[in-house]
Amino acid sequence: MANYLLLLISKQVFIIMKTNRLKNQQAIAGQAPGTLTYVGAAKSSKVDITVIDYDGVEVFEEKVISDVRNCYDYKEKESVTWLNIDGIHDVRIVKTLGMYFNLHPLLMEDIVNTHQRPKVEFYEDNIFVVMKMLTYKKAIKKVEVEQVSLILGKNYVLSFQEDIEGDAFENIRERLRKKPNGKVRNSDSAYLFYLLMDAIIDNYMVVVEGVSEELEQLEDKIIHESAGDPTKALHKFKRQLTFVRKNTRPVREIINNIIREEDDAGKFLKSVHLYIRDLYDHTIQVIDNTDSLVDMNSNLLDTYLSMLSNKTNDVMKVLTIFSTIFMPLTFIVGVYGMNFDEMPEVHTKYGYYIIWIVMISTASILFYYFRRKRWL
Amino acid sequence: MANYLLLLISKQVFIIMKTNRLKNQQAIAGQAPGTLTYVGAAKSSKVDITVIDYDGVEVFEEKVISDVRNCYDYKEKESVTWLNIDGIHDVRIVKTLGMYFNLHPLLMEDIVNTHQRPKVEFYEDNIFVVMKMLTYKKAIKKVEVEQVSLILGKNYVLSFQEDIEGDAFENIRERLRKKPNGKVRNSDSAYLFYLLMDAIIDNYMVVVEGVSEELEQLEDKIIHESAGDPTKALHKFKRQLTFVRKNTRPVREIINNIIREEDDAGKFLKSVHLYIRDLYDHTIQVIDNTDSLVDMNSNLLDTYLSMLSNKTNDVMKVLTIFSTIFMPLTFIVGVYGMNFDEMPEVHTKYGYYIIWIVMISTASILFYYFRRKRWL
Amino acid sequence: MANYLLLLISKQVFIIMKTNRLKNQQAIAGQAPGTLTYVGAAKSSKVDITVIDYDGVEVFEEKVISDVRNCYDYKEKESVTWLNIDGIHDVRIVKTLGMYFNLHPLLMEDIVNTHQRPKVEFYEDNIFVVMKMLTYKKAIKKVEVEQVSLILGKNYVLSFQEDIEGDAFENIRERLRKKPNGKVRNSDSAYLFYLLMDAIIDNYMVVVEGVSEELEQLEDKIIHESAGDPTKALHKFKRQLTFVRKNTRPVREIINNIIREEDDAGKFLKSVHLYIRDLYDHTIQVIDNTDSLVDMNSNLLDTYLSMLSNKTNDVMKVLTIFSTIFMPLTFIVGVYGMNFDEMPEVHTKYGYYIIWIVMISTASILFYYFRRKRWL
Amino acid sequence: MANYLLLLISKQVFIIMKTNRLKNQQAIAGQAPGTLTYVGAAKSSKVDITVIDYDGVEVFEEKVISDVRNCYDYKEKESVTWLNIDGIHDVRIVKTLGMYFNLHPLLMEDIVNTHQRPKVEFYEDNIFVVMKMLTYKKAIKKVEVEQVSLILGKNYVLSFQEDIEGDAFENIRERLRKKPNGKVRNSDSAYLFYLLMDAIIDNYMVVVEGVSEELEQLEDKIIHESAGDPTKALHKFKRQLTFVRKNTRPVREIINNIIREEDDAGKFLKSVHLYIRDLYDHTIQVIDNTDSLVDMNSNLLDTYLSMLSNKTNDVMKVLTIFSTIFMPLTFIVGVYGMNFDEMPEVHTKYGYYIIWIVMISTASILFYYFRRKRWL
Amino acid sequence: MANYLLLLISKQVFIIMKTNRLKNQQAIAGQAPGTLTYVGAAKSSKVDITVIDYDGVEVFEEKVISDVRNCYDYKEKESVTWLNIDGIHDVRIVKTLGMYFNLHPLLMEDIVNTHQRPKVEFYEDNIFVVMKMLTYKKAIKKVEVEQVSLILGKNYVLSFQEDIEGDAFENIRERLRKKPNGKVRNSDSAYLFYLLMDAIIDNYMVVVEGVSEELEQLEDKIIHESAGDPTKALHKFKRQLTFVRKNTRPVREIINNIIREEDDAGKFLKSVHLYIRDLYDHTIQVIDNTDSLVDMNSNLLDTYLSMLSNKTNDVMKVLTIFSTIFMPLTFIVGVYGMNFDEMPEVHTKYGYYIIWIVMISTASILFYYFRRKRWL
Repeated sequence: MANYLLLLISKQVFIIMKTNRLKNQQAIAGQAPGTLTYVGAAKSSKVDITVIDYDGVEVFEEKVISDVRNCYDYKEKESVTWLNIDGIHDVRIVKTLGMYFNLHPLLMEDIVNTHQRPKVEFYEDNIFVVMKMLTYKKAIKKVEVEQVSLILGKNYVLSFQEDIEGDAFENIRERLRKKPNGKVRNSDSAYLFYLLMDAIIDNYMVVVEGVSEELEQLEDKIIHESAGDPTKALHKFKRQLTFVRKNTRPVREIINNIIREEDDAGKFLKSVHLYIRDLYDHTIQVIDNTDSLVDMNSNLLDTYLSMLSNKTNDVMKVLTIFSTIFMPLTFIVGVYGMNFDEMPEVHTKYGYYIIWIVMISTASILFYYFRRKRWL
Repeated sequence: MANYLLLLISKQVFIIMKTNRLKNQQAIAGQAPGTLTYVGAAKSSKVDITVIDYDGVEVFEEKVISDVRNCYDYKEKESVTWLNIDGIHDVRIVKTLGMYFNLHPLLMEDIVNTHQRPKVEFYEDNIFVVMKMLTYKKAIKKVEVEQVSLILGKNYVLSFQEDIEGDAFENIRERLRKKPNGKVRNSDSAYLFYLLMDAIIDNYMVVVEGVSEELEQLEDKIIHESAGDPTKALHKFKRQLTFVRKNTRPVREIINNIIREEDDAGKFLKSVHLYIRDLYDHTIQVIDNTDSLVDMNSNLLDTYLSMLSNKTNDVMKVLTIFSTIFMPLTFIVGVYGMNFDEMPEVHTKYGYYIIWIVMISTASILFYYFRRKRWL
Repeated sequence: MANYLLLLISKQVFIIMKTNRLKNQQAIAGQAPGTLTYVGAAKSSKVDITVIDYDGVEVFEEKVISDVRNCYDYKEKESVTWLNIDGIHDVRIVKTLGMYFNLHPLLMEDIVNTHQRPKVEFYEDNIFVVMKMLTYKKAIKKVEVEQVSLILGKNYVLSFQEDIEGDAFENIRERLRKKPNGKVRNSDSAYLFYLLMDAIIDNYMVVVEGVSEELEQLEDKIIHESAGDPTKALHKFKRQLTFVRKNTRPVREIINNIIREEDDAGKFLKSVHLYIRDLYDHTIQVIDNTDSLVDMNSNLLDTYLSMLSNKTNDVMKVLTIFSTIFMPLTFIVGVYGMNFDEMPEVHTKYGYYIIWIVMISTASILFYYFRRKRWL
Repeated sequence: MANYLLLLISKQVFIIMKTNRLKNQQAIAGQAPGTLTYVGAAKSSKVDITVIDYDGVEVFEEKVISDVRNCYDYKEKESVTWLNIDGIHDVRIVKTLGMYFNLHPLLMEDIVNTHQRPKVEFYEDNIFVVMKMLTYKKAIKKVEVEQVSLILGKNYVLSFQEDIEGDAFENIRERLRKKPNGKVRNSDSAYLFYLLMDAIIDNYMVVVEGVSEELEQLEDKIIHESAGDPTKALHKFKRQLTFVRKNTRPVREIINNIIREEDDAGKFLKSVHLYIRDLYDHTIQVIDNTDSLVDMNSNLLDTYLSMLSNKTNDVMKVLTIFSTIFMPLTFIVGVYGMNFDEMPEVHTKYGYYIIWIVMISTASILFYYFRRKRWL
Repeated sequence: MANYLLLLISKQVFIIMKTNRLKNQQAIAGQAPGTLTYVGAAKSSKVDITVIDYDGVEVFEEKVISDVRNCYDYKEKESVTWLNIDGIHDVRIVKTLGMYFNLHPLLMEDIVNTHQRPKVEFYEDNIFVVMKMLTYKKAIKKVEVEQVSLILGKNYVLSFQEDIEGDAFENIRERLRKKPNGKVRNSDSAYLFYLLMDAIIDNYMVVVEGVSEELEQLEDKIIHESAGDPTKALHKFKRQLTFVRKNTRPVREIINNIIREEDDAGKFLKSVHLYIRDLYDHTIQVIDNTDSLVDMNSNLLDTYLSMLSNKTNDVMKVLTIFSTIFMPLTFIVGVYGMNFDEMPEVHTKYGYYIIWIVMISTASILFYYFRRKRWL
């Protein structure tokens, strides 16, 4: 442990980078592992720390904390403490909390690195889970992401969010506040931890359903109304779905790892094992549905392209029919528009009428030919 | 157990949602796990509860129950009891039964959540299987789905269906009624449980064959009659097949889990192990055939597109041949339609005939050229 | 065992269905497992039962049996007995034999269900293998299938075929008859069983080679002669190959299962273990080659489509060149075909010649332009 | 063993088939396993047998043997003996050698069956490896194959090649001859065996690099010069690569099997275990590179098709621009070419000039329109 | 060991090949394994050897060495020694160092073979890792590669680089120099080894982000500006990404092997196990992101092709509309341009006006027809 502390102390400056991703990556590459550098633009300048402390019926305390040191007392308490930090761009707060709760330097690095891949890690006195909270913004048809780091210790849960804006946990807070006899209030921190994960995963389903609904609308438009070029829309949906997939797929692995972890490390979650298994089902379902949508998306593109080929073929046919009928006729009338002195036909009495007959016959034959070829 | 009961009691309201899927998902996300919320529109307002109670030759009782409490007596009986509930939108009935038969809250949640992924779960005193019953409605060329939850206990089987309309189990009921010496009447509840699963899986085959038959008709139409644009039809079939696949693929996993389950939990199904293995074969075959059809579907699209490209090429050739033959001719006759005072050719005696010869030669050369290029 | 017999006796009617597949599937779905129902049209009305009984040099007996009860004696004999049944639509024969040889009801159901997926099953006193015998009918370019069920017992082998027409086993019979010192005659029933499987698998290779040869011919035609639209042919080959794949792929699994089976059940095949491993290689090779052909097939389609796009592009170029050269010229001659009183050019002496020069220049410039664009 | 000998003796005739593959397969299918039938046209009529016998510094003998019996003495010698047989169509030689070196009948069958899939087999007193030697003939842009069977015994290595023409082993021979202190001369037969495998696998790399180089040239031509239709070339490369893949992929499995083989059977290769692991890396690299090339090949086809679509689109635009500009103009001049008595415009003084102004304006507007549409 | 030395001594010549890859491969194929041949053009003629020797606070020494023998002393020292060799084309240096540090001949062969696949190998007294250092050259939009071989021994780390130009390790050197209390200075050689791997892997992320950024710019251009043909650019990106994938994917395997290695061989890395696990996450993320980009690349091509098809269809429509409207009109005016003596219409008073009405009606009807067909 001494080593880690040493490492932490030896850093004087915590650089907060607000520029684009590439620069951040370049800054991080080659840095000492365990260096806390916030990656990504600070989504808001304020940092909100809220504590909820409860047990069964008697104890319930909820307050917003301004000075991070005020939450030190909760660690030793018997009651369950949920410490929620909104905004992780202030690396000092993460560092201070981390040292107090005895977090591994690599763990702290993962909290502030918002490009972290979802994962679980088992430390001696806590379990660390990084997940992505997704939101589907219907107005701009885009899925947005926020990284959530959850840490489960003996009788506390820490949750770090990027943003102070709304989250998926409001429902859980409500239940904590209003139902002193509820299961949550009467269970340990592991159950709270499970509930937080459950809320995030259930939210994936909402996102997937949102995308699905719009994709089905687009399908209707493509198949039945055949209006406009849906290529860009399909491309956009594809990207959103790939984005969802990238952020949800590792969750399966996380839950698998939790279930399989037989060691000491897994002890914190023993009590909610059955519930974790249930999460697994939900995750699989999210992944299945996302895969179905990706599949549907590419089917739609194929279908659209096939319908387009058909239309182009129809356009070609119309052009060809008109051309092949009128070009010979135009040639014929051109012939008798020539000014040769010696053109016997033009001087005959019925020439003009005969030429009309010839032209009508030509057109009819071609018309009949196209009908037989099923072009008409 | 106390905990679960507590949880159940603490809910005063069971919200039955009748709106669209998305809303339901949003409602569920963030709810306490174990909350019973019916997901999906209520397919019918009535709930039918039927009891079939039998052993060997002597006992056979079949009746429709109106008050759910009337079926309490059957649990303790030695004879095998099959309790079938059609309609699960009345969450109170599920709850009452669940508490009496000692079902886990998560299990009850799964019964009423009709978007549940097919799965098996092993509890201390029962085995819980969720599957999807599929029907191919030929008239609208659509595969419809109904969720069936099967619970196997010591001497009872519970089956929950979404709908009171017909199911795949009629055949089994018939056999129970009419053959007092039949294998079913003389076997335990596990055999009945197996029979129900078998009926559902066999029915998948019927659905797949139904789709297959229509797809083959479409193939014939595409390949031999080359009439109309089959793109939309193929798209629809693809979606149906994806739907079937999504609902049947997890069944393999279910049966695998049953076979592998060596623990106490699996004890209920020991007696029908050999039969369960047979189910595995059937499931694989359903999956194989569905995959083949999906494959065939995309082959058909490829084939159609290739044939279409060919046709477009043919149309283009016709257009090109006509254009390249008649455009030079029209130009030539245009030349001699000009009104220049000084045009020696038009005043010669044979000019007109010579020009005809020139035009015919031109056309012949082009015609010969296209023949050599195999365009004709 | 009592149970099974009971089940069998309890059936009075054996329904032989001769209608189409769908109906059969519907009939089977929901039936009692173990019910013997022949699926598929009866390929011939006769049923042929042949017995070959042999050991080393002394014993060799081969006869056609009309009454199934006549083959009962062979079971207890020390010598190896091969009982071949051609035609399985007469379910009574299967049932009678099955009861005598102590076959499990599910096994008997699999024999008569000709849509059975290839598989192996290990029973207490026999090993049961279902495989598909394939034939490539060159005339109609179609692969045909016949189901073969092989049962290996202590000193007998039973083989059930759908059809009385020729099979892949003639070679083996010949060897049995003519070589009293041959390995077959001096080995046990397991070796015969292996030989039968070997004959079927070797035959797959013949089928694959047959398809391969024709596909290579088609390739030559597409690549070098570029004649006609090969789309339908490729589609047909694809279906044949998918069919072969569907029927051969499970064979790998079968042999794998045999090799891995360490239990009592596998004891019958211990003596030919080395040979079975050899079968595995052959099967892998069949699968590899089929996969290669499928791959080649889709490559050919891609290649054809690419060549077609090229041709269409060429056709377009010809059309465009002609149009862009002749349309301006036709316009020019049209101008001087107008009848305006006041057109100074038409009254000049060299106007006509000048206009020719203008037109030839225009054409030349355009021609040069296309040459530079490499369209010519 | 008696059995095998019996089997061998019982064959009087060794049919050497020189006809095409299909016939061979048909001939083999149904034959007794262990029958030696040469599959494939005899590549040359002569059979070359060379012996190299060596140990450390003292012993080194290299000679060509005409009578196969002359090599019998080498088996019992302490020194390492490498027996190389070029040409396996003379099945008698294989049989004689096989009996002397105690080879299993199935092994001998594999040697002469030149369509054998690469594989390794462990027998009691030898290890048998079948591999394919590949050569890239640059002139005909084709990869050619020759089957090599390697057998490692206690102090001998047998190698069977199809052809007497050059092989990949010359380098090894050279080293054996010239470096009496070299590692080869001072190691056991296993090291020689490893060297032979290494030479074959290293040669794959040469083949892959050869194809890669030509493919890169083709890529340059497609991307930068855009000349000609590369479809056929790409198709050919694809086939060559598929061919290489088919022959090299099983090698990974072979080496894996050797590494994992812990039994007695693997004892021969214990001393070169580290080297075999190195082979594994090489094989993976060959496979990786082949996969990359296959990938690159299909990317190239996609790229080419996309470029072609672009060109077709450009051609279409040119055609459309010309047509839409000149068709209205031609119509206008046509109007004033009509011969109606009553056409006031043609008799006005400035009609002709006005019409020119109208036409130029029309053309300009259309031109501007296409410019705005970015078609120009 | 004697054997290896013998082998090394027996080589008199170290051929340094500067020609192209193929020739090198041909040269290597068939060579004695363990022969040191530098593969690839010598990137620079100089070889730089730098030593950094340190422990905790007291010892720190950094110097450039000209004679390789000068670094012999460091091996026995207690302090951690990092020996970095830039430029591996001088095979003698590698050989000399290799013999001194007791490296296996195969290992030395791998160091100088710059086409080596990334891999890890565990020897008795060192761990050997080959990785690829990637750089994205923005100017030429190309990813460049340099092979790095890392060897971890008891208290030393050797790193071999192809090139003397800058590397990803500068940051680490800086930290070593400036922070005597830093974690690096106070840890063992394993930590340094981990840091070097970490620097290389972090750098992959920079490369991937660089490509990603440019690909996103290209996406914007394709989707929103629709300018130019992006096919070549997409093709180039695809190749770069394939290249990155080929070089980064094996790294996952490397780290997996390190984690799993439980033997003596893995002992050197025990102390940094937790950190190595962290590397695994980073590697997965690089691979995930590369896969996403490859996916995005092919989506972009699909999207572009679909948009192009749409445009071609639009162009076709314009052409067809113009043609079908003007061809009939041109025909009509052609009719009245004929010179027949007997054409009653041309002599009527209102003929000319009537013909205009006819033409305008025709055009209007066609216009209305196309509007209804949604072509306008």
